[in-house]
Amino acid sequence: MRQVTGWAADAPGAAPAPWGFERRDPRGGDVVVRVTHCGVCATDRHALAAGDPAAFPLVAGHEMTGVVEALGADVDDLAVGDRVAVGNIIDSCRTCRSCRAGRENDCEAFPTLTYGGEDRVSGGITQGGFSTEIVVDRHFVYALPAGLDPAGAAPLLCAGITTWAPLRRFGAGPGTTVGVVGVGGLGHLAIKFAHALGAETVALTTSEAKADAAKALGADDVVLTRDPDALARQARRFGLLLDTTGHPLDLAPYLGALAVDGTYVLAGIPPEGLRIDPMSLVVGEKRIAGTGSGGVPATREMLDVAAEHGIVADVEVVGPDRLPEALARLGQGDVRFRFVVEIARR
Amino acid sequence: MRQVTGWAADAPGAAPAPWGFERRDPRGGDVVVRVTHCGVCATDRHALAAGDPAAFPLVAGHEMTGVVEALGADVDDLAVGDRVAVGNIIDSCRTCRSCRAGRENDCEAFPTLTYGGEDRVSGGITQGGFSTEIVVDRHFVYALPAGLDPAGAAPLLCAGITTWAPLRRFGAGPGTTVGVVGVGGLGHLAIKFAHALGAETVALTTSEAKADAAKALGADDVVLTRDPDALARQARRFGLLLDTTGHPLDLAPYLGALAVDGTYVLAGIPPEGLRIDPMSLVVGEKRIAGTGSGGVPATREMLDVAAEHGIVADVEVVGPDRLPEALARLGQGDVRFRFVVEIARR
Repeated sequence: MRQVTGWAADAPGAAPAPWGFERRDPRGGDVVVRVTHCGVCATDRHALAAGDPAAFPLVAGHEMTGVVEALGADVDDLAVGDRVAVGNIIDSCRTCRSCRAGRENDCEAFPTLTYGGEDRVSGGITQGGFSTEIVVDRHFVYALPAGLDPAGAAPLLCAGITTWAPLRRFGAGPGTTVGVVGVGGLGHLAIKFAHALGAETVALTTSEAKADAAKALGADDVVLTRDPDALARQARRFGLLLDTTGHPLDLAPYLGALAVDGTYVLAGIPPEGLRIDPMSLVVGEKRIAGTGSGGVPATREMLDVAAEHGIVADVEVVGPDRLPEALARLGQGDVRFRFVVEIARR
Repeated sequence: MRQVTGWAADAPGAAPAPWGFERRDPRGGDVVVRVTHCGVCATDRHALAAGDPAAFPLVAGHEMTGVVEALGADVDDLAVGDRVAVGNIIDSCRTCRSCRAGRENDCEAFPTLTYGGEDRVSGGITQGGFSTEIVVDRHFVYALPAGLDPAGAAPLLCAGITTWAPLRRFGAGPGTTVGVVGVGGLGHLAIKFAHALGAETVALTTSEAKADAAKALGADDVVLTRDPDALARQARRFGLLLDTTGHPLDLAPYLGALAVDGTYVLAGIPPEGLRIDPMSLVVGEKRIAGTGSGGVPATREMLDVAAEHGIVADVEVVGPDRLPEALARLGQGDVRFRFVVEIARR
């Protein structure tokens, strides 16, 4: 077994602090990744604050970059020292329709989450990326394209793929108009990707202070949604609205801003149930869609496109000792646009 | 003006009774249709029971077949005596993106409904198909293909197109599995169309008594949904679920029966708001879609396919004097599967 240091919460609500624990020795198909950077996601906040007590002590973190430290005997397409990345899924059944189609995030037997999941082979609870090392099956380790800054690239592995996948699935591109609801950790990457895909890209935000930032990120236009009439003036504008807020919103005015056949995608997960007036879907024959992260092929494609367009997250880098502060500030929306914990310089 | 008899309710909740009123003389592009048959839709029940009092006396009815009685001077592709059909839309703006795309039901200026709408040219409230004659612009009059029984064909113009359009839009066909929720006026036609399109067709019904009927209509399988475990056993089975019930359902078990990327289509409109657990959409990346009726091209295609496959509604034909009884029995679900009012023998 390998001795590792993680930044773990002892119990729900406790501040993450250094904790020594063991990772498995690499099996034949495994990669040992020395983690250099791990982004801080709203999901981390939620899991650490209100996760299943049986999963604690819990090391969160599921969007990381690092360096190959060691390889299992069967891995021949990576080398020690290679820059790599790991996301929010580290295993899946590999045999169901979804896995065979490269949609491992939709594994019918449920994918193994990077932390708080049950290890499919060893059993036990998986521990995440706020740690010095992680051991992951090669299939779920991504080569990090050259030129991507490892700090800025870390959030691509969750915030990036979570926005990239629906933009691709719902056809964002030239001739389409995409609205990104919320300009935060997910939203700011959604703006960059929608712009890179050639869509007319519109940021929808309650924050006047974020309007200029949204344009600098690549938005062609900004709609300030605190003005109750602003959305009404967008009637039928958007083929796709990507809601990255994760807050319960009154969807009706947003659905009104969709074009015929338009889709409202829930990329952030509202904590409460949605209430929907069916007529707001019937008029204009609109859709509401859920989306997860993405499978291996989509993640590889996203990384390639990010490298081609120089897309990384705008990050505030902190040391692991400041993880509690980062989680608190994230809860207040006080970050532009993603905290990344630097576990090691390289 | 033309003197017409309609079967009108004087006020919301009143029983429809004979009422003399006037229709316009045909304008250049108009067709005067002598109505022979008009189906009874749940929408009629709702409009007559609880419509806007300002629209009364109200003649309902929006799925009708009949015979061309007279033509405006500019109509050169129909002849007096031709069998025709009229649906739930009799006009639209003709200039918006939706209208130009043949999606008149999604007209951005809102289509003119067959009854209870405002006439775009003459003003005044439109009156529907439970009447001896209707005057409609040629664009919204459909030639009735030879071989389609005019009584059974009448419901195709609303129940038929309302189920046909989403089946086509969401790709029902060979290799797909379509679940039809509810085996009533809409549902029984949805089963026939899904079967004709070559989809594996499954009826989902609370009624054991309808299981055999569903198979006779073309269902390959029937799921009795009163058994709370029955839906759980259908996990990930359906690419498309077409909800024709119009009742508020607990959607969660139905969403669980959708495959990855599957779509739950609301073809009946629940009277109340839907409550949706976002996670039931996120897991498997599923969608909820609204649908209306259909535009002119889709309606023509539906009629052609119906003729090719011999698809008409299973109807109980009543005289106009029995319209109140038909409405009452429809409210109790006591019809197999659609009432049609015979206004005239031919």
